[in-house]
Amino acid sequence: MTEPRLVEVRKNVLKQNDVIARALRERFHQAGVFVVSLVSSPGSGKTAFLEKTLTMMRPHHRVAALVGDLATENDAARLARSNAPVKQIITGTVCHLDAAMVENALQDWDLVDLDFLFIENVGNLVCPSSYDLGEDLRLVLMSVTEGEDKPLKYPTIFNSADVAILSKLDLATAVEFNWDQAQRSIQSVRPGMMVINTSAKTEQGMSEFCDFLVQRSRMRAAIAV
Amino acid sequence: MTEPRLVEVRKNVLKQNDVIARALRERFHQAGVFVVSLVSSPGSGKTAFLEKTLTMMRPHHRVAALVGDLATENDAARLARSNAPVKQIITGTVCHLDAAMVENALQDWDLVDLDFLFIENVGNLVCPSSYDLGEDLRLVLMSVTEGEDKPLKYPTIFNSADVAILSKLDLATAVEFNWDQAQRSIQSVRPGMMVINTSAKTEQGMSEFCDFLVQRSRMRAAIAV
Repeated sequence: MTEPRLVEVRKNVLKQNDVIARALRERFHQAGVFVVSLVSSPGSGKTAFLEKTLTMMRPHHRVAALVGDLATENDAARLARSNAPVKQIITGTVCHLDAAMVENALQDWDLVDLDFLFIENVGNLVCPSSYDLGEDLRLVLMSVTEGEDKPLKYPTIFNSADVAILSKLDLATAVEFNWDQAQRSIQSVRPGMMVINTSAKTEQGMSEFCDFLVQRSRMRAAIAV
Repeated sequence: MTEPRLVEVRKNVLKQNDVIARALRERFHQAGVFVVSLVSSPGSGKTAFLEKTLTMMRPHHRVAALVGDLATENDAARLARSNAPVKQIITGTVCHLDAAMVENALQDWDLVDLDFLFIENVGNLVCPSSYDLGEDLRLVLMSVTEGEDKPLKYPTIFNSADVAILSKLDLATAVEFNWDQAQRSIQSVRPGMMVINTSAKTEQGMSEFCDFLVQRSRMRAAIAV
């Protein structure tokens, strides 16, 4: 009964989000900061992956992170070990970040001081997919422990992402991970999607990933000129 | 701006859900079927856990399962290997089951033919928490690969569940799982919560879990008389 009204209200919320996200993206471009967001299930290793990324990039680039969570500041505390500026966004009962939360969190940051800004979304494979945060690149992480068919089960989040990061590759043997099957799932949902194999623990793929980000930010800078 | 209206509409949806859930619970009790729902992140092993449970219980009890998913029938196909009756509920873009979906899926099932009905929710640690499905017992699964602080990050879902199932215990060493820390997280969110250690792969804890269900269903039957 109430469904059509709910859909309509949802549309308005999304429209409002898009307006703010567009303004954010414009601001990011003008400041010359390349913005990368991360989505995944809870526990697929976003924070470990991001901590490793911040630690590896910080000697060469000015990096910072925003991290969304329902209830704790644990992730911000973990990421702060990289010595990069980090801010936690507590979403309460909301299962995703939205553009207004990002805008709000950035109020006292001068974006021209940054080369890369990372935004770690709330761990959720459904809610974050419809919310543009003004990012340049959206990564979807999928750990080898989750099962190879996650893309088939959550196609929208894989469709809304630009690059898939396979995480926890160090556990691949222990969980009998089938890489070909995972690759088939990803490619059937989003043909041609780039997939990067990583392990934050063994650092497999991490420097390749950092190089990829630097290259992508240069490409965007070249286009902006 | 639109938030208060959204909250109001959401309240109506939840109220409507509660009315249907209440009727379902009454129907389950009259038919003498004990209903168990499962919530967790995507990939924490609900389907493997449930397949093992159905297989172990089927020789002694009449068991069946409903399984919710956004987009595929993969889980129903996996659960059907247990030879128990299984039905898939495809939710589309909706990140949780609701009581109406369950009611609808059960239309052509005669509940008096069942002793236990399992309902596997969509993999999500946020959305399912507010939706009563008329179940007798709600289990929240947490795999050892997800990180010990999940209960602190998703307190609502742990609060709305009756029992916590630690899954994939066979991987505990590989991921350096800290059982004490996980236990502290759970107990700080929900003091006194029962925690069962399991591995669907090695069958650790599985027969204890099945015994627990049988005992709980007898307790409920005793109360109902």
